[in-house]
Amino acid sequence: MYNYSTSAQSMRSSAIRELMKLAADPSIISFAGGMPNNQLFPCEIVEELYHSLPLAEKQAAFQYGPTPGYPPLLEALKEYLRSRGLPVDTNELMVTSGAMQAISIISKVFVDTGDTVITEYPCFIGAVAAFKSHGANIAGVPIDNDGMDCDQFRTALSRDTKRVKLVYLSPYFHNPAGIIYSQERKDAVAALLAEHQVVLLEDDPYCELYFDEADKPLTTPLKATADSRFPICYVGSFSKIMGPGMRLGYILAPPEITEKCALAKQSMDSCSATYTQVLAKAFLAENQLAPYVEKLRPVYKRRADIMLNALDEHMPREGISWTRPKGGFYVWVTLPEHMDSTDVFKKSLEKGTAFVVGSAFDPQGVKNNCFRLAFSHTPEERIAEGVEKVAHAVKELL
Amino acid sequence: MYNYSTSAQSMRSSAIRELMKLAADPSIISFAGGMPNNQLFPCEIVEELYHSLPLAEKQAAFQYGPTPGYPPLLEALKEYLRSRGLPVDTNELMVTSGAMQAISIISKVFVDTGDTVITEYPCFIGAVAAFKSHGANIAGVPIDNDGMDCDQFRTALSRDTKRVKLVYLSPYFHNPAGIIYSQERKDAVAALLAEHQVVLLEDDPYCELYFDEADKPLTTPLKATADSRFPICYVGSFSKIMGPGMRLGYILAPPEITEKCALAKQSMDSCSATYTQVLAKAFLAENQLAPYVEKLRPVYKRRADIMLNALDEHMPREGISWTRPKGGFYVWVTLPEHMDSTDVFKKSLEKGTAFVVGSAFDPQGVKNNCFRLAFSHTPEERIAEGVEKVAHAVKELL
Repeated sequence: MYNYSTSAQSMRSSAIRELMKLAADPSIISFAGGMPNNQLFPCEIVEELYHSLPLAEKQAAFQYGPTPGYPPLLEALKEYLRSRGLPVDTNELMVTSGAMQAISIISKVFVDTGDTVITEYPCFIGAVAAFKSHGANIAGVPIDNDGMDCDQFRTALSRDTKRVKLVYLSPYFHNPAGIIYSQERKDAVAALLAEHQVVLLEDDPYCELYFDEADKPLTTPLKATADSRFPICYVGSFSKIMGPGMRLGYILAPPEITEKCALAKQSMDSCSATYTQVLAKAFLAENQLAPYVEKLRPVYKRRADIMLNALDEHMPREGISWTRPKGGFYVWVTLPEHMDSTDVFKKSLEKGTAFVVGSAFDPQGVKNNCFRLAFSHTPEERIAEGVEKVAHAVKELL
Repeated sequence: MYNYSTSAQSMRSSAIRELMKLAADPSIISFAGGMPNNQLFPCEIVEELYHSLPLAEKQAAFQYGPTPGYPPLLEALKEYLRSRGLPVDTNELMVTSGAMQAISIISKVFVDTGDTVITEYPCFIGAVAAFKSHGANIAGVPIDNDGMDCDQFRTALSRDTKRVKLVYLSPYFHNPAGIIYSQERKDAVAALLAEHQVVLLEDDPYCELYFDEADKPLTTPLKATADSRFPICYVGSFSKIMGPGMRLGYILAPPEITEKCALAKQSMDSCSATYTQVLAKAFLAENQLAPYVEKLRPVYKRRADIMLNALDEHMPREGISWTRPKGGFYVWVTLPEHMDSTDVFKKSLEKGTAFVVGSAFDPQGVKNNCFRLAFSHTPEERIAEGVEKVAHAVKELL
């Protein structure tokens, strides 16, 4: 009826979102949402931090801030990123309204209709949506337990090179796959990126959520080690280390790119919420991040263990495999090629459990013999029971 | 150096922003920023409101929310909008990250490169930026003290009708002009919109800030009276009734349009900050809005009076006029055609005062014999002194 823009004409609610609505019943054991559990948020700490601020800063929280971010937050964030080995002094930092907006802005800055973005398969739904909303063709390169398949990555990079504008990777506790790249695979990926000089969007929301200190070195970003070799837009988030409701993320990129990103953001929302930027600044500056994530790590590790133990115990083995995460929120289950995870979803739902079907994470929206189980949000005492229900659904369909 | 998208290639920091950087010195008396004064924000009330919330709601503030908004905020906001006569039951409401994002989303939903958006001249800078970032051609129709020139509006509507996708109006305490539409002019504008069936984006951030109760009827939105006659996307904001740092605005529009807007928002930032949505919900639900804006109105009225008195006393009259606002934040000064407000800006700056030059508000970025004085942010006791300096600068250039 209305005379929409071309891009709005193609917007419609996805079949997967319709499917997810079926799982909204609170009695369902849900492994669907990729979010932290409400009980884990640092409510009291943050309320106390705000209460202790000088009046001038409480007032500043209500005011507009500069588009690239509230300056004291940028300073505190630089300190934190420097401690993680990131090159904050040769790059420019800006705050965004969640990592989602960071990805959307970077798409706007690099992608014209018909351009190609190379992603992993499977891939974070939000990133696929952002690239598509800017008219991108998406080339999904499969990942295994160690990262992207580099033969297929090389092929994708070599095809129609002028139109490959971005490579999007989420190498650390991948959503939905739950894997972390091995050092060898990171080196191989970096060598290909250096050779082709394509811009990398390195998305890293889960980096702090490793289960074992011994795995921490694997979380070193490419931005920290390969920044001089090819252009890298590093994207981080407060969603998993404070709370998604803050809607705060950030981009660390070469100054020229960050300047374009800030110009793009100006006409999107002027600035991110100053109120939550003030809270995030206090959280960082008062050294609350480290003790908070130290508290989170064993909680998520325990949930992952419960989930993996339940899978080991109940899930059939014939042609079925799943990832064994070293951090983050997710286990990715792969069924035999002929199986359809939507069938498993429907049968699981009858039994009272939900998850997200695989096609949601396929840039082409087709492949559906996989599914994602999130252990981050489900009440701990219901995880084993929920996994058993999913396993039974699979058995009945085998 | 980088292979940017077409739209990013044309992004650059405007000459006006460069000019404004000169005015950043805190010793300057600035009439530049269109924002509330920090001392006026309801800091204590809001902190107390959050403190009194049940734990579950404090926790929800840290979590993702639905893309169209935190449901309890939508309910409270509907109650408020209903009290203002807005048709909340036949339309759909969604929350945005400030009115700026609302305008950006509506642009994305309606505007393709080469389409036309009709705006007022002068026009809010942010709206112009949002329309241009979606490739719009902008047709600016002059306004006088009563609103848009309807002869020129008719002409603009009739030219290349297929490509006129949106009409953008800010009829109530206009930024930058400071005027409010007369009832007759609103009727005439509505008749033309009904005849041409173009979508109206009615931007209404300042509605609550009338100076005199007697003028309140003028603030009745077209959305409240003409909704059945043509499609209206009504946009509001918490920036002037709570604080811009909340980054909260909203769209009230026909359900089909709101659905497209929510799909567009999904890939922009997933949802607006839940934390500030929880605060805004408490502010509305605990009936804090009405007493707060009642406190604000006489403050802004007094500031406007001081500014107008100083203009009456010091500004030369030959070929110079200015608006006499009945609400909002702004006075718009028109100089003789041959004068350039950038010259006045430079001379004023030497004397220690700043404002925003007229070309910033010209969709074509050309006309520059006007300028905007904001009285919302300047310390009250410095307004008269600042205006005198500007008046002297004008005198010296006459």
